[in-house]
Amino acid sequence: MTVRAGRGGWTARFAARTERMRPSEIRTLLKRTAGSDVISLAGGLPSPATFDVGAFAAAAERALVRDGRRALQYGPTDGRPELRAWVAERTPGATPERVLITSGSQQGLALLAQVLIDPEAPVAVAAPTYMGALRAFDPYAPRWLPVATDADGMRPEALEAALAQRPAFLYVIPDFDNPTGSRMTLERREALLDAAARHDVLVIEDAPYRELRFEGEELPTLHELAPERVAHLGTLSKTLAPGLRLAWVAGPEALIEALQRAKQASDLHTSTFVQAVALEAVAEGALDRRLPELRVHYRARRDVLVDALAVEAGDRLAFEPPQGGMFLWARATDGTDTTRLLGAAVDAGVAFVPGAAFYPAGAPADRLRLSYSLPDDAGLREAARRLRTAFDAPAARP
Amino acid sequence: MTVRAGRGGWTARFAARTERMRPSEIRTLLKRTAGSDVISLAGGLPSPATFDVGAFAAAAERALVRDGRRALQYGPTDGRPELRAWVAERTPGATPERVLITSGSQQGLALLAQVLIDPEAPVAVAAPTYMGALRAFDPYAPRWLPVATDADGMRPEALEAALAQRPAFLYVIPDFDNPTGSRMTLERREALLDAAARHDVLVIEDAPYRELRFEGEELPTLHELAPERVAHLGTLSKTLAPGLRLAWVAGPEALIEALQRAKQASDLHTSTFVQAVALEAVAEGALDRRLPELRVHYRARRDVLVDALAVEAGDRLAFEPPQGGMFLWARATDGTDTTRLLGAAVDAGVAFVPGAAFYPAGAPADRLRLSYSLPDDAGLREAARRLRTAFDAPAARP
Repeated sequence: MTVRAGRGGWTARFAARTERMRPSEIRTLLKRTAGSDVISLAGGLPSPATFDVGAFAAAAERALVRDGRRALQYGPTDGRPELRAWVAERTPGATPERVLITSGSQQGLALLAQVLIDPEAPVAVAAPTYMGALRAFDPYAPRWLPVATDADGMRPEALEAALAQRPAFLYVIPDFDNPTGSRMTLERREALLDAAARHDVLVIEDAPYRELRFEGEELPTLHELAPERVAHLGTLSKTLAPGLRLAWVAGPEALIEALQRAKQASDLHTSTFVQAVALEAVAEGALDRRLPELRVHYRARRDVLVDALAVEAGDRLAFEPPQGGMFLWARATDGTDTTRLLGAAVDAGVAFVPGAAFYPAGAPADRLRLSYSLPDDAGLREAARRLRTAFDAPAARP
Repeated sequence: MTVRAGRGGWTARFAARTERMRPSEIRTLLKRTAGSDVISLAGGLPSPATFDVGAFAAAAERALVRDGRRALQYGPTDGRPELRAWVAERTPGATPERVLITSGSQQGLALLAQVLIDPEAPVAVAAPTYMGALRAFDPYAPRWLPVATDADGMRPEALEAALAQRPAFLYVIPDFDNPTGSRMTLERREALLDAAARHDVLVIEDAPYRELRFEGEELPTLHELAPERVAHLGTLSKTLAPGLRLAWVAGPEALIEALQRAKQASDLHTSTFVQAVALEAVAEGALDRRLPELRVHYRARRDVLVDALAVEAGDRLAFEPPQGGMFLWARATDGTDTTRLLGAAVDAGVAFVPGAAFYPAGAPADRLRLSYSLPDDAGLREAARRLRTAFDAPAARP
């Protein structure tokens, strides 16, 4: 039998893994709200109000005047040496040789998956965890080992049970987690590394929100505590600008070397132009100058949302205010199914992400993630009111 | 038994596919020549003399002034709509919905491999073909179907035999091939598409050198002749600047949609900043203004190398002067093993890529690729003299 592919018929020819890349219904629904009057608490987009457009214009000009032809030519796969040196300086435990520049942390996750996951290999992740990590790992057909969490991150006994199965790696966001906003205590960090050492498991530490700390002392990264066991992912996306797509992995040298080979096959190297502009921007202090302002900015946004939720939906939502980052994780106190709630919410003019989207399996129905990064004060307050309306709508009820 | 990973020991934990990403010895040798006095005919780097640094500086300024916050924010995975529209306009048979913006054509190849290659699936490629394509496809463990070539590209009977095995796809560079510099005739193009239709095989057309045509009339692309059967890869790397990492795939809608899902997991999207700057540059005419100059520039380089080789190594090398692109493909008339020759050449101060690097399997020993894109006139002439010296060196002889 000959199957004729013809118009749109190539789907029958896709590799098995392509079946694992289905677009989610929630994503499709949220996409439809873009450009409408719906206030979005769904995305994790940094506020464009924090972008220093002038600093980038100046950095681009300097990069091209000083170094134009180099900034436009092919470059080394592992990244521009000066940028790797800058990353190493800011990353305790790293050296430039242990740094790979990537096109966003999403690429770091995808390369780690490609290099580390054999089909059916166990992979340990928090449940819930970052959707983009699940999406990056999933095409390689891992067997999920979900680790239950509490307000301080992964529960020690659940973590122990997962690591005892010797996963390909453990993936964790210790600082101001996506989606839960939680931060691992120092004790939990040390216990995690102790368990990882006992079971000899590689740890992937994703740290996009680490620098957006509102309260509490700085805690050491997992990578700082155990540089030979931890691959650390850092990024400029949540601080300088996500549109650059500039991030990095720091970790054990053999791993960085393998990731570099995978990256060469994936995209040769990250844009030398972007690297040159980012290097000019950070060298001139654009990041360090910006961080205190960013913390004030996002802390204020959190406060407005927390207060507005207390007023509008205090009886309906249980949550801990996050001490940093961009996300507030809540539970519907009456057990409302938040996937159902989303439909009513979009009708009422507000969007969020139902918690189920963040679980590799076995999701509870009553969680939701609210991002306070994008709307202004009035928008956050109105969003809370609309959320209340959604809770009261008949469509939200089973 | 517990294997302790420790320092550098993570290699034991890598996925099986990571074994397929070994660095090549030739690459390592060539890397060592960087920054030395060795004249390189090895790389496929565009001449930085052709980069219009001023046009990019102006484009970056305009992009940030007009549209700064959008240029720095996250963007859609498939690319900026205005850029997809620009690509569609220049790509007969395409519409904006059938275009995916990628981070260089290397990413297009890697995404196609991820979406299309199941382990052990047959994949048809010219032998020889672009090394980076072999590297992009190889981690997914295809079974190679090498198609023998002549001066006009793939031989029809070899192509027919390969397509009869119903490969996942056929990969081809019809215009000024890498490494052979050859161009497929119109008759061959039509015959290829006819065979692909009979066996219902998807065709991947890689066209990075298409616009660098020195002689002969423009021929239609495979995509133009059969838009529902061909994924066409275009890029700004060989014309405007490779450092941008800006390219695209145009093709059947179902395929583009699957590639877009794979890209979302791979790097979310190509830098919005790079897309904004490139859009400003091309909208202002930077590419169209540049193309005639580029053709003159590279044609002159080709002429110098062809003449110098005729003078210095006319008896040692057999080749057809390419009618476009950056590469001259030659055969050592006395059967010299070019991998062995490379050692003597580097000693004599000139580098090239031995032909064996471009074959998925069954490589002849006596071919080599010479690139004329980078050195100036004097450099090309000196390179030819040094090549002669290498041929005469005892180390080049078996």
